[in-house]
Amino acid sequence: MTEKINEAPIGVFDSGLGGLTVAREIMRNLPTERIVYFGDTARVPYGSKSKDTIVRYSRQIVRFLKTQDIKAIVIACNTATALAIDEVKEEAGMPVIGVIDPGAHMAVRATRNKNVGVIATRATIQARTYTTFINNLDPEINVISQACPLLVPLVEEGWLHDRITDEILMRYLDDVLEHDVDTLILGCTHYPLLRSAIKKLLGEQVTLINPAYETAKELEKMLAASGLANVRPMDKNEPYPYKFFVSDDAKKFKDFANSILPIDVTNARVVPIEEY
Amino acid sequence: MTEKINEAPIGVFDSGLGGLTVAREIMRNLPTERIVYFGDTARVPYGSKSKDTIVRYSRQIVRFLKTQDIKAIVIACNTATALAIDEVKEEAGMPVIGVIDPGAHMAVRATRNKNVGVIATRATIQARTYTTFINNLDPEINVISQACPLLVPLVEEGWLHDRITDEILMRYLDDVLEHDVDTLILGCTHYPLLRSAIKKLLGEQVTLINPAYETAKELEKMLAASGLANVRPMDKNEPYPYKFFVSDDAKKFKDFANSILPIDVTNARVVPIEEY
Repeated sequence: MTEKINEAPIGVFDSGLGGLTVAREIMRNLPTERIVYFGDTARVPYGSKSKDTIVRYSRQIVRFLKTQDIKAIVIACNTATALAIDEVKEEAGMPVIGVIDPGAHMAVRATRNKNVGVIATRATIQARTYTTFINNLDPEINVISQACPLLVPLVEEGWLHDRITDEILMRYLDDVLEHDVDTLILGCTHYPLLRSAIKKLLGEQVTLINPAYETAKELEKMLAASGLANVRPMDKNEPYPYKFFVSDDAKKFKDFANSILPIDVTNARVVPIEEY
Repeated sequence: MTEKINEAPIGVFDSGLGGLTVAREIMRNLPTERIVYFGDTARVPYGSKSKDTIVRYSRQIVRFLKTQDIKAIVIACNTATALAIDEVKEEAGMPVIGVIDPGAHMAVRATRNKNVGVIATRATIQARTYTTFINNLDPEINVISQACPLLVPLVEEGWLHDRITDEILMRYLDDVLEHDVDTLILGCTHYPLLRSAIKKLLGEQVTLINPAYETAKELEKMLAASGLANVRPMDKNEPYPYKFFVSDDAKKFKDFANSILPIDVTNARVVPIEEY
């Protein structure tokens, strides 16, 4: 019985495609864990919506994920973490981690001059969750936040290495740079795909924090601490250790998934999420 | 009784903010008509979603609008018109017009060299509705289409007169220009707000078609033909000839509405649209 729950999958959800960068880090760093991914492609993006709406959507997703016999939940979306993590924990009744806490912890460890930048969607920035988390850990840290609403559509347009993207980044990062930050949190799951463009702009002296990676490492610790880790290596012939669900049959989902994941995503089942 | 129905409002809906440019043209051109506007701000944008999803959302909105005793419906969204106009008509049981037919008609009348360009969201372009409508009217017209997914977020970021926007427009319009178009349809309700930037780029020789304006003129004809026009001037003291509903309480909605409408929008009521 214990073994059975250890072999259960991790539920991972996001407003759409971006959370796949979190799923990718879990696949890379926790190769014995199964994953059920849900992307809310019918209602994406969350970044410009209100708390009430994001809480309602997140609760529906948790109720769906619970039908998949999962053992833990990763909120692979900065906006949903910022606005709904407490409600998700309440609805879930199982271990839950979001992407903000691990990223905030790493930023606090990484900064030397106590100037930390955060770039994210408008909703994440307005919720001030990164600022609150970081200042709870170290009130002396100066957090410089910048909403960057154009970056998600730029990533989805595929303009990752592009002069226009560089110019838009320069505009968004201008204020962050003026404040002499030595650490920058990529506070939206799409942004790691712009890592090299941002690196080029900021130079080697600024540490970029990828919350997706930090979240995978934190998940590993949480599973170990709660006795939920799966220690049995996965059978290489197991047909579907990773399952994908979406709320809208966007062809883009499979294209995007296959462009960033180390596996082939051949199937993403559509779930009528409004009914949960 | 007849008079009563003539005084009933027009239901106007869109995936979010963009349809307000259509509402604006109705206010300007049909000053005796009342309007009930619904913006699906909780599920915006439609432009990257599938037909099934857009049909489901549009049907829910029509069911809501019918609770408001409307006399006709304007689909003020190119994507919903392209993918769901037949289903909206079926659900509505009253006169319905979309934004595509009037824009296509005007483009056919305007072009001299029979090269017409269309810029729109990815879903509208993929549905090929403009191309089909135009070629039904004149099979000899060469329609050059271009999906421009970054333009809506650029408008919503407020970068209307901006070097970056000019560069992105140049990239998107490159192919359209190479085909020597003399007429360009602004096939997304946000795009009229980029009219002057596009005009600057294309010069005076290209006629820009604003489907919002054409739709208001077409609505006027339709109301007259069906005997539904309201001929009584509105009482200047009538408190709310225009009502606004949204599915998410985005502050952005009111800001955007007040920036483009000739009236003050003080209130936009939130409707739980999933329940319709």
